[in-house]
Amino acid sequence: MNDSSKILKILKKAPLFENCDPERVALFATQSSIISVEKGQMLFVHEEPAKRFFLILDGWIKTFRETLDGGQVIVDILPAGEIFGETSLFEGEFYPYSAEAVESSRLISMPLSLLKTEIDQDPKMISAMLTNMARIRREQDRELEHLKIQNAPQRIGCFLLRLTKQEEEGQVKIQLPYDKSLVAARLGMQPETFSRALAKLKDATGLEISGSTILLQDIKQLIHYSCSACSSEFPCKDLTEKSGCNL
Amino acid sequence: MNDSSKILKILKKAPLFENCDPERVALFATQSSIISVEKGQMLFVHEEPAKRFFLILDGWIKTFRETLDGGQVIVDILPAGEIFGETSLFEGEFYPYSAEAVESSRLISMPLSLLKTEIDQDPKMISAMLTNMARIRREQDRELEHLKIQNAPQRIGCFLLRLTKQEEEGQVKIQLPYDKSLVAARLGMQPETFSRALAKLKDATGLEISGSTILLQDIKQLIHYSCSACSSEFPCKDLTEKSGCNL
Repeated sequence: MNDSSKILKILKKAPLFENCDPERVALFATQSSIISVEKGQMLFVHEEPAKRFFLILDGWIKTFRETLDGGQVIVDILPAGEIFGETSLFEGEFYPYSAEAVESSRLISMPLSLLKTEIDQDPKMISAMLTNMARIRREQDRELEHLKIQNAPQRIGCFLLRLTKQEEEGQVKIQLPYDKSLVAARLGMQPETFSRALAKLKDATGLEISGSTILLQDIKQLIHYSCSACSSEFPCKDLTEKSGCNL
Repeated sequence: MNDSSKILKILKKAPLFENCDPERVALFATQSSIISVEKGQMLFVHEEPAKRFFLILDGWIKTFRETLDGGQVIVDILPAGEIFGETSLFEGEFYPYSAEAVESSRLISMPLSLLKTEIDQDPKMISAMLTNMARIRREQDRELEHLKIQNAPQRIGCFLLRLTKQEEEGQVKIQLPYDKSLVAARLGMQPETFSRALAKLKDATGLEISGSTILLQDIKQLIHYSCSACSSEFPCKDLTEKSGCNL
């Protein structure tokens, strides 16, 4: 199978394209390519003119910004299946963040100019963009709420609970998807704050940590500890609902 | 002028409607009404089935959620000109937050069912929704960044700077738009944290507070203090750019 037919097969299943006219998806496939990037490689830089957007096939991509005094703020750590760079269309066609591979990754690289043209012509495409935007907005909403009201140990607990299958009961083993230092940065915590908060969470819920594996003796303890300071009940609605869009 | 023609005149200038077919806007006007609410009155409750969405004519509306343990998280304090409740369309038609008037306010109340129908039929309407969603997303993005990287005094400084005309120089007087306690809640701070942070900001930048008036001896000091921990330079791009959407 050549790249273009491989890409076509993948795009057809991607939320942004699944309801679109097949000819439009085919057009994207012919103008896209699969690229490989090494750990630490930059995909693009914040405020650069945006030319391409990306779908992650495997690996992890960090999106972030730098402050004027040299700090780094992580916007997200994106897993396989996620699309990024596409919202540049609504930011004057400049990238709204930088993107860097946090481990070697493979991606589909697509032209943003084509997305712009197709959105103008296909109401299904613009509707898919809107659903996608609503999902990002909802996730940001939750993150904002938690940054405002949860303490640091609760936020780590919430991060862990979102890694579970959500319907599990009793003893549960969780595998951290990436480095603890990256988890800290993703949660907007200094490494020392993260360590202290993790120790507090351990005391409060009895979880055990061994390398990148976390063992919960009873998932209920962690739910009780973290989810009381959240406006949504566990299981997390945004993870269990198929789609929030009724259009 | 009757309510319907008053509403039509206002809706024609609202970002959500300004590019739409005039007959569609007229349809909204005939199905909408102007309502008055007292301070403390609820417009709707989080997770209630969503029937109406609103445009604020005057006053201030607080959107918020309650956590399971009884805490309140403020999502936003919305001024005149803002629309709210409309994103329920992407939340399974349930309100994603509660809404309450923080002072007596007047609003246009519009049926959500009509918005749903019209979005399906008018690409300009869906495009306006997308632009609106992108703007909310961008604001949330900034707020997330600041919650993660700015300290409390810097966040108050940023809030104050966003109340200025942005092109002002030298001595600047700022009027707080609402109660200090509400500013604290809007920024996700406990009242004590807010008081301490405000005192620190005073020491660092020499600002003077008298009731709800803040006097800056030199706006540059505040810019230097707050904006160094931001990925965007002052003046704030999202306030100075007309629209980020190129579609």
